[in-house]
Amino acid sequence: MMNLANLRIVLVGTTHPGNIGASARAMKNMGLERLVLVAPSCFPHADATARASGADDILANARVVARLDDALMGCGLVFGASARRRTLPWPEVDPHQCALRAVSASAHGEVALVFGRERAGLTNEELDRCHFLVHIPANPHYRSLNLAAAVQVLAYEVRMAAREEPAGAIPPWTSAQAPADEMERLYRHLEEVLVETGFLDPDNPRFLMRRLRRLFNRARPDCQEVNILRGILAAIQGRKQSKQSR
Amino acid sequence: MMNLANLRIVLVGTTHPGNIGASARAMKNMGLERLVLVAPSCFPHADATARASGADDILANARVVARLDDALMGCGLVFGASARRRTLPWPEVDPHQCALRAVSASAHGEVALVFGRERAGLTNEELDRCHFLVHIPANPHYRSLNLAAAVQVLAYEVRMAAREEPAGAIPPWTSAQAPADEMERLYRHLEEVLVETGFLDPDNPRFLMRRLRRLFNRARPDCQEVNILRGILAAIQGRKQSKQSR
Repeated sequence: MMNLANLRIVLVGTTHPGNIGASARAMKNMGLERLVLVAPSCFPHADATARASGADDILANARVVARLDDALMGCGLVFGASARRRTLPWPEVDPHQCALRAVSASAHGEVALVFGRERAGLTNEELDRCHFLVHIPANPHYRSLNLAAAVQVLAYEVRMAAREEPAGAIPPWTSAQAPADEMERLYRHLEEVLVETGFLDPDNPRFLMRRLRRLFNRARPDCQEVNILRGILAAIQGRKQSKQSR
Repeated sequence: MMNLANLRIVLVGTTHPGNIGASARAMKNMGLERLVLVAPSCFPHADATARASGADDILANARVVARLDDALMGCGLVFGASARRRTLPWPEVDPHQCALRAVSASAHGEVALVFGRERAGLTNEELDRCHFLVHIPANPHYRSLNLAAAVQVLAYEVRMAAREEPAGAIPPWTSAQAPADEMERLYRHLEEVLVETGFLDPDNPRFLMRRLRRLFNRARPDCQEVNILRGILAAIQGRKQSKQSR
């Protein structure tokens, strides 16, 4: 059994505290311990504790944060549970593929599995933070899984994937994958440069930044690569870069 | 998607009607429709209906019977969900193997997946009715899955097994992957810009271009993305780009 301590479950904007409790129970059953709650409607709450049914330690240790970006600090790989998205196709995996990748990556760094609101799911902006969308196959006439049921399915696949070393694991990278917060700084810097050069019209941004996010998220840059990219951006802005940083 | 009409879920001696409702929802989400209840403590019940959340048709069509044997009538293959049994080793499968066998057998005959009581599970006598025990891998220090969560895991694996498309298909991409020659033009353009901005010293290029190639090759940009990147490079060089190209 591999160590799952680097794997966090992030619940965004959960409305019903009972679902938080049931998710905690599903996590603990499968050996996951780190729960992060982004702006839950009511927590702590008696319903959460009741449904946790013995997994109250997960609730007691849960981190509550205001924004998704706070929840993703330090994460090099982020999966977002989602129904299919229409506007812009995004790399998509099924729960099994998600778990194989998540477990394999968690040997080297922090990984997050993100679940959205009971009714509305994750916003497009939140999905843009994810490297992959996870789509749980479902009845096309009745798609909406209960939140804790979705957590259960992914946590189960994670446990299955962690039972033994998965074959074909990703080779260890020279440098650690850049965490989410560093990627956000990169995207802000990139956007700034694109506006300065006139390529991005802030009044009519269209899908440009989202397309670029999708592109770089696929590549999953490591810290050194992000440093190079930011060095390039700074050079474009005319700031002299020390060549050592390359 | 294969037909799952020959597959029934059997819940034995369920104590909490809420779990019956949540199980019905999990079933319907995964495309399973036939629910049989063996001597439930209270059914129908408002808690069952509330937790079914739109899967009330499954509840309305549920058969209620007095004994497990009645529930298994006509079934050629029976799986019983169970923690490991001690007294007598029994053929055991994991949820994935269970689903593969269940779906394959359901093409020719009736199959049942049986779940026991919330606290006590299935009795040995009931387990004797099963061809295979299904063991859901769990944290050895916290094994007891919620009943509906166990139904969700097996129903999910059944749906995965019934998919006709093989797993691992790449989502349809908006535009074709850029061919090698187009990528070469991108890299030459990028190199030009890096030299112009002073970030790349042609007399001492080091690994910069190879690092950038490795990064973009991982992302495998499509033609549209390469157009965007080249548009950005042109904008940096001060050539005005038509905004249509985005």
